[in-house]
Amino acid sequence: MSDRREQNFQKPPGALISIINRAHFIIINERLKPCGLSAGQFLALICLVRKQNIIQDTLARHFHIDKGTVARAVQKLEDGGFIRRTPDPENRRAVRLFLTDKGREMAPVLHSIDLEWEKGAFSGFTNEEKEQCMVYLRRMAANCISLVQKNGYGVDAGE
Amino acid sequence: MSDRREQNFQKPPGALISIINRAHFIIINERLKPCGLSAGQFLALICLVRKQNIIQDTLARHFHIDKGTVARAVQKLEDGGFIRRTPDPENRRAVRLFLTDKGREMAPVLHSIDLEWEKGAFSGFTNEEKEQCMVYLRRMAANCISLVQKNGYGVDAGE
Repeated sequence: MSDRREQNFQKPPGALISIINRAHFIIINERLKPCGLSAGQFLALICLVRKQNIIQDTLARHFHIDKGTVARAVQKLEDGGFIRRTPDPENRRAVRLFLTDKGREMAPVLHSIDLEWEKGAFSGFTNEEKEQCMVYLRRMAANCISLVQKNGYGVDAGE
Repeated sequence: MSDRREQNFQKPPGALISIINRAHFIIINERLKPCGLSAGQFLALICLVRKQNIIQDTLARHFHIDKGTVARAVQKLEDGGFIRRTPDPENRRAVRLFLTDKGREMAPVLHSIDLEWEKGAFSGFTNEEKEQCMVYLRRMAANCISLVQKNGYGVDAGE
């Protein structure tokens, strides 16, 4: 066992998740730098690439991030000309989000960033191991959402 | 399959890791609030609980977080009287970190926070499933550290 694997062996799951998350964050930040964007806007943009005409608060709920973080990301994306915001005709307090042409052009960039990290993170995994790991991660994510909601914190608690 | 599990099913691994990490962050923040601390100081403090007389830069390397983040955490911990900093007698540029009595009293608090999150995150897992999941997380973390280093970003790139 190498020194690095030995060190990871002693780390609790929270520290491992933090390292994995941080690597994703670093790759996103480095790859988005030339576009004038950073990791803060990545999730919002990738969500809009998949589904447009989405209400801003739905975006926060979908990724379980707080409304303030989403509001800042959306503002930066609008300032950069990647998205446009339109008030919802049926609910004056809601805002609907759409990609601009410049935003649409980001789709392959975002896809390649996520793929690069995913390939790196699962390096050496067989297809079966990766699929089993994804099953565990989905169960952990569902558990974590329940844990936070059960404690009544809501997604805004971390802000 | 419930709606929530259905939604998680469609999420890429990066989004799942982000949700799991954020729940950890929220629980830490809420539980440390009464002590005047937040998630930013948690990793540094938990590391010192395990091993004292550590050099500040080693702390950054151990958790693969940037030196600026560690410096801010250490400053806040010193201001709060949880740790004390002593210049290394053999290397004037290095600083060694020690827990104070107040810092030592945090050990059971930190342990219970991590345990609460861990119990929640692995809820419904058998011991074998949890151990298999930990094996995958260790491999993913080691891969992610290699990925970041291979790209030459270093742990400071995300700052």
